[in-house]
Amino acid sequence: MVVVDPGVGSARRPLLVTTTKHYFIAPDNGVLSLVMEQEERVTVRHITAEHYFLRPLSNTFHGRDVFAPCAGWLSKGVEVEKFGDEITDYVRFSLPKPKAIGERVLKGAVLKVDKFGNLITNLTAENAGAMFAADAKVKITVGQAVVAGIRASYSEGKSGELFGLLNSMGFLEIACNRAAAVQVAKAGRGTEVVVEF
Amino acid sequence: MVVVDPGVGSARRPLLVTTTKHYFIAPDNGVLSLVMEQEERVTVRHITAEHYFLRPLSNTFHGRDVFAPCAGWLSKGVEVEKFGDEITDYVRFSLPKPKAIGERVLKGAVLKVDKFGNLITNLTAENAGAMFAADAKVKITVGQAVVAGIRASYSEGKSGELFGLLNSMGFLEIACNRAAAVQVAKAGRGTEVVVEF
Amino acid sequence: MVVVDPGVGSARRPLLVTTTKHYFIAPDNGVLSLVMEQEERVTVRHITAEHYFLRPLSNTFHGRDVFAPCAGWLSKGVEVEKFGDEITDYVRFSLPKPKAIGERVLKGAVLKVDKFGNLITNLTAENAGAMFAADAKVKITVGQAVVAGIRASYSEGKSGELFGLLNSMGFLEIACNRAAAVQVAKAGRGTEVVVEF
Repeated sequence: MVVVDPGVGSARRPLLVTTTKHYFIAPDNGVLSLVMEQEERVTVRHITAEHYFLRPLSNTFHGRDVFAPCAGWLSKGVEVEKFGDEITDYVRFSLPKPKAIGERVLKGAVLKVDKFGNLITNLTAENAGAMFAADAKVKITVGQAVVAGIRASYSEGKSGELFGLLNSMGFLEIACNRAAAVQVAKAGRGTEVVVEF
Repeated sequence: MVVVDPGVGSARRPLLVTTTKHYFIAPDNGVLSLVMEQEERVTVRHITAEHYFLRPLSNTFHGRDVFAPCAGWLSKGVEVEKFGDEITDYVRFSLPKPKAIGERVLKGAVLKVDKFGNLITNLTAENAGAMFAADAKVKITVGQAVVAGIRASYSEGKSGELFGLLNSMGFLEIACNRAAAVQVAKAGRGTEVVVEF
Repeated sequence: MVVVDPGVGSARRPLLVTTTKHYFIAPDNGVLSLVMEQEERVTVRHITAEHYFLRPLSNTFHGRDVFAPCAGWLSKGVEVEKFGDEITDYVRFSLPKPKAIGERVLKGAVLKVDKFGNLITNLTAENAGAMFAADAKVKITVGQAVVAGIRASYSEGKSGELFGLLNSMGFLEIACNRAAAVQVAKAGRGTEVVVEF
């Protein structure tokens, strides 16, 4: 169940999404876009069965009044069909994709700074896999800062150096061993990341 | 189980409170006052059955040594009578109530600033219900700041405007769509809120 | 299960530790040193049974890929022997111990500042028990600040005064009633604590 919902109380729809292995209950605001992009079989339903909602229904806390009660009923075995009809016009957003400049340059961006100050980029094992090869020769910059190279784990980074690594979600992460890369690199969300092969 | 207990280790008593639907285990410091005000049938017991406490008993962590073990035993089916005798002289505090100035003005206050910077007031659907009527004409100020009006949900507020809404607990909340009302209004806990009808 | 592991992805070993009452799954980086020091019967195994790990195995998130799955299998009844062989050369670190200067002075240190600003020291009921006796006459200083005395609980401290108390883990804690001792004492981790009997 996802409650990231600045549009709570407006006309945005509550959704029940079924994939091969999981159920998701979430607002129709794009928050499940990556799930929908990665899963093969996705069925999306607009939850309209208001008898599963709490009463009185508030305008400002659908996590409590709509999503959680529906998740509860679902967990008790209520069939997904009972919550509402399938829809196809749900909201999707796309992550910014890296751009190739000729054959030797790839430009991406920092998507997120995590709580340790690591910079999570949109370059992945899929769209920039060559970068992670054992013998890869690449120059990586994030904003004005030069990255020392690709490392296999945090503890391989030397003190104070910025390095890249393939993180546990499959993304290129710019990190600094026991320091905050966001400060060392003077970068932030949106900073350009350039890889030259 | 409630552990908000600056008086831990002093003579304040541990309580077991029974209402129609719930049990509460908490220090006798007023933290359950609103529960006791809203519930119809309330039985309050002073927990004296020390054989349900952890040993050794610390002076500084009754959440671990007193409240949690009693909650555990209660959840295993121990009858409430076994924990101690009923009392009636438990601590209660009262929320500050709004004051009517003539027939057209109501003065309340900000009780709390939540983690989003919303200002939660002591004006409610019960004591100031007319404010939330669809055709209500009211002027609301919080400290020096003028509130644009009542909205049904956060997403109805225009960028940068302060607005009021009936929140999910039944209180008037002064908010700002995707911004922190506490900063926009330059207000805080205790700031006066005036409603003119 | 413990995940405090700056060496994740390096050669440090995953451990399964068995004590009289508990199991611990943790990195071999010393994080269990106090457990090992306090427990009488401790068996330490190097987890090598990779078929209990998640696949693909990341280099940066062994909490997810190694420790949690092993904890899961353990909870399902898999015998500890199946996870790997016993070892004895695991990593241990020692807490700094207080030093006696003659018979009347004991020098310790602040080990940690907790989230309330209390100063947790390495002086304990075991190594400095006389301090907590009802009739103890001691002078305690933390850095430049003088501590008013030993109190039984937080609420016994007068406003603004620094006091010591035996905390719920058995350590001398320097606190201040409804204030942050770390600010009142201008102290921090490592600050010297001197007890004169």
